[in-house]
Amino acid sequence: MTSPGNNSFPIGKLSMLLAVLRDHSWNEDVENELKEKGYRYVVGKVGAMDLNKVIAAIETTAKNNHIINKDLYHEVHALYHAIIEALQGVGRGMVQFGDILRTVGLTFSIVRGKLGESSEQSGEWIAVSIYGTIGAPKKGFEHEAFGYGFNHI
Amino acid sequence: MTSPGNNSFPIGKLSMLLAVLRDHSWNEDVENELKEKGYRYVVGKVGAMDLNKVIAAIETTAKNNHIINKDLYHEVHALYHAIIEALQGVGRGMVQFGDILRTVGLTFSIVRGKLGESSEQSGEWIAVSIYGTIGAPKKGFEHEAFGYGFNHI
Amino acid sequence: MTSPGNNSFPIGKLSMLLAVLRDHSWNEDVENELKEKGYRYVVGKVGAMDLNKVIAAIETTAKNNHIINKDLYHEVHALYHAIIEALQGVGRGMVQFGDILRTVGLTFSIVRGKLGESSEQSGEWIAVSIYGTIGAPKKGFEHEAFGYGFNHI
Amino acid sequence: MTSPGNNSFPIGKLSMLLAVLRDHSWNEDVENELKEKGYRYVVGKVGAMDLNKVIAAIETTAKNNHIINKDLYHEVHALYHAIIEALQGVGRGMVQFGDILRTVGLTFSIVRGKLGESSEQSGEWIAVSIYGTIGAPKKGFEHEAFGYGFNHI
Amino acid sequence: MTSPGNNSFPIGKLSMLLAVLRDHSWNEDVENELKEKGYRYVVGKVGAMDLNKVIAAIETTAKNNHIINKDLYHEVHALYHAIIEALQGVGRGMVQFGDILRTVGLTFSIVRGKLGESSEQSGEWIAVSIYGTIGAPKKGFEHEAFGYGFNHI
Amino acid sequence: MTSPGNNSFPIGKLSMLLAVLRDHSWNEDVENELKEKGYRYVVGKVGAMDLNKVIAAIETTAKNNHIINKDLYHEVHALYHAIIEALQGVGRGMVQFGDILRTVGLTFSIVRGKLGESSEQSGEWIAVSIYGTIGAPKKGFEHEAFGYGFNHI
Repeated sequence: MTSPGNNSFPIGKLSMLLAVLRDHSWNEDVENELKEKGYRYVVGKVGAMDLNKVIAAIETTAKNNHIINKDLYHEVHALYHAIIEALQGVGRGMVQFGDILRTVGLTFSIVRGKLGESSEQSGEWIAVSIYGTIGAPKKGFEHEAFGYGFNHI
Repeated sequence: MTSPGNNSFPIGKLSMLLAVLRDHSWNEDVENELKEKGYRYVVGKVGAMDLNKVIAAIETTAKNNHIINKDLYHEVHALYHAIIEALQGVGRGMVQFGDILRTVGLTFSIVRGKLGESSEQSGEWIAVSIYGTIGAPKKGFEHEAFGYGFNHI
Repeated sequence: MTSPGNNSFPIGKLSMLLAVLRDHSWNEDVENELKEKGYRYVVGKVGAMDLNKVIAAIETTAKNNHIINKDLYHEVHALYHAIIEALQGVGRGMVQFGDILRTVGLTFSIVRGKLGESSEQSGEWIAVSIYGTIGAPKKGFEHEAFGYGFNHI
Repeated sequence: MTSPGNNSFPIGKLSMLLAVLRDHSWNEDVENELKEKGYRYVVGKVGAMDLNKVIAAIETTAKNNHIINKDLYHEVHALYHAIIEALQGVGRGMVQFGDILRTVGLTFSIVRGKLGESSEQSGEWIAVSIYGTIGAPKKGFEHEAFGYGFNHI
Repeated sequence: MTSPGNNSFPIGKLSMLLAVLRDHSWNEDVENELKEKGYRYVVGKVGAMDLNKVIAAIETTAKNNHIINKDLYHEVHALYHAIIEALQGVGRGMVQFGDILRTVGLTFSIVRGKLGESSEQSGEWIAVSIYGTIGAPKKGFEHEAFGYGFNHI
Repeated sequence: MTSPGNNSFPIGKLSMLLAVLRDHSWNEDVENELKEKGYRYVVGKVGAMDLNKVIAAIETTAKNNHIINKDLYHEVHALYHAIIEALQGVGRGMVQFGDILRTVGLTFSIVRGKLGESSEQSGEWIAVSIYGTIGAPKKGFEHEAFGYGFNHI
């Protein structure tokens, strides 16, 4: 039995699994839970040596899929900082790719929703998970990387 | 059908799922795949405000469970740098916890094994995944965090 | 003629002037503009070698003076990240004080309110300005420092 | 009464006010105090996505206005590090602009002079204050930022 | 008497001296000790404003001179991280050159071999030392810099 | 022939060799050249897990040996920043020791003097070189590290 059952996932875990389980059968369960909880979400891909292309791809995907309202600055600001946080995990101490001769092939997820049921945590939050490979621009000379950013919105 | 089937996971993804799926039914599938591939692995927990306690807990767990040989300096060195990388994801740009008034409650996994089948990638590698919460030392005022470090061994 | 007249200040500038003009006659004009605009604000002081004492002092001042609602996690989260940003300016690349043998004597201001009139910028924001001295723990062997952090709330 | 009176400003505060009060009536008082104290100073503007253009603009303004002697390496070195420090405040932990899809519109001031009257502090110092906006390359989607750097010369 | 005699150098010191003593008579002694110990080593030069050119020059020199096996990913990975570490020393807190208007003229050495005689330290290691000048793109307006990176292989 | 002959060393190289060649016969030549050039210099040792003890040891050694005048703030400021720069090389991206479970055993040199003969470079400068071991608090589980900082005075 592989259904999550009572073991439902919090928002961050859902976004991580969404980025990691692409093309895997468990993905359906993850998406179902996202829908049941009323979370807005999207998954996208980007491959680049230019850091700003990666940021732009994630921002554009979030805006075009209405995860955030592109006309509200505080939503754009919340997303931007969540992306930068996630990239700090991917780059581990250096938010630089092509500059330091690294290329990345990334799958990212963006999830938006409530953190918990209590009134203390009643606001909305945004989670950005980035999973993929980082390495030299030569096939096989790369390894996996993961980053997670989270912000109130 | 929820079995991974042909969609088997690479080493990093396995370590991430191991850290994230603790107490979830899918965990059994993840552990089965780890065993089939001959990977050494372990999962542990640590809660602290002191960064050095977190590092020590991960190191000790890896040594006591024979993921690395504690008597070989290059294995200890490989693990140490993988831990620091993972903590850079958890801390997002600052490898500091209590110093900046943050406390963490973390589950970590350590996985060791081959990266791929090809001769180019024939050496052994170590993956450290850290999942948990980070925040103020007050219940409910924390959110999820994730970090991933990877190194040749 | 020293009245700001039409030259009214945006939120960040007001918070900077509030931190910097303490005990100066211009301060009254700054406070008047803050009140006219309906901003919540407070000013406080802290001297320490321990980074976490500085963070705690700013957090506590903001909570006790109802600049943020201490029972709402997303407000506490917004303030925390604005404080860290401001400290990155004070420390210039290193958010460390006593660890690297520096002591600080700081005046800080926290201001909360709208960014602009347009609907795009309709949400509330929080500005943290920190002004003071940083240096060796010996009188006269210190110089001024400034940091500014800003976040949506 | 708005004259600074006995509340005269130290060098850093003067440079901060000079960068912030451009086009404001108080600016005259700030410039008067700078002149009375015999400080050399200049104010300039730069808008860019390229970090190196921002640095070059500040350096060139300082040299062309004889705040530093462009033919003396130690003066150029002192200014350079004060600029980098100030940019660490503007960027808050990341001295990167276009790379991470941010654009800036900045006013900067450079002030040079003595720190205090005592013999211990008899050398000359240089203060760089940078005030302006940072954000997405889209009108209204930016907020204020501030940075301050200081160095002996 | 200037022979090192019993005072033989450990691997890191040898790599530092190799980078620093280029064109100096002592260099012969250093190279002799490297040969006696069976270390693989090479020295190269690179001048650039682009960080990625510096990394590429060091990587290429190491591969072409068979210090590492360019077809084994874990060797390439070990070298890459040793280079980044060395550049953190050169850049002192910022692994950026042209971006922040700095140019470098560098001599680098790469040395590979055992760390010690004991079984604990029996694996191979790689040391990267980088020595040269960093500064403004104007003759005489630069100073020396040094960086050292070390990794197990 | 091992005399440096015409191959005299610049200030940074002299400080590096002074830190590295302790107890080696070449050290005498290095000290002779330092004396001939009229440089003030000193060498010291410190072992610690606490970062602030390392900084204090270097500062105190410099003051007690009159490399800098402890009563002049701009000299103390110049030294402090050169020390921090050197520690960034030792720590490679993280100026933290005990916090991240690392201990160090270090030899440091401080050299003060002119950079060159030309009028452009006529001011005095200070070089700090730090050489030693960094690693786990267990014998044999450490490796060499090096850092170099340089500042005008």
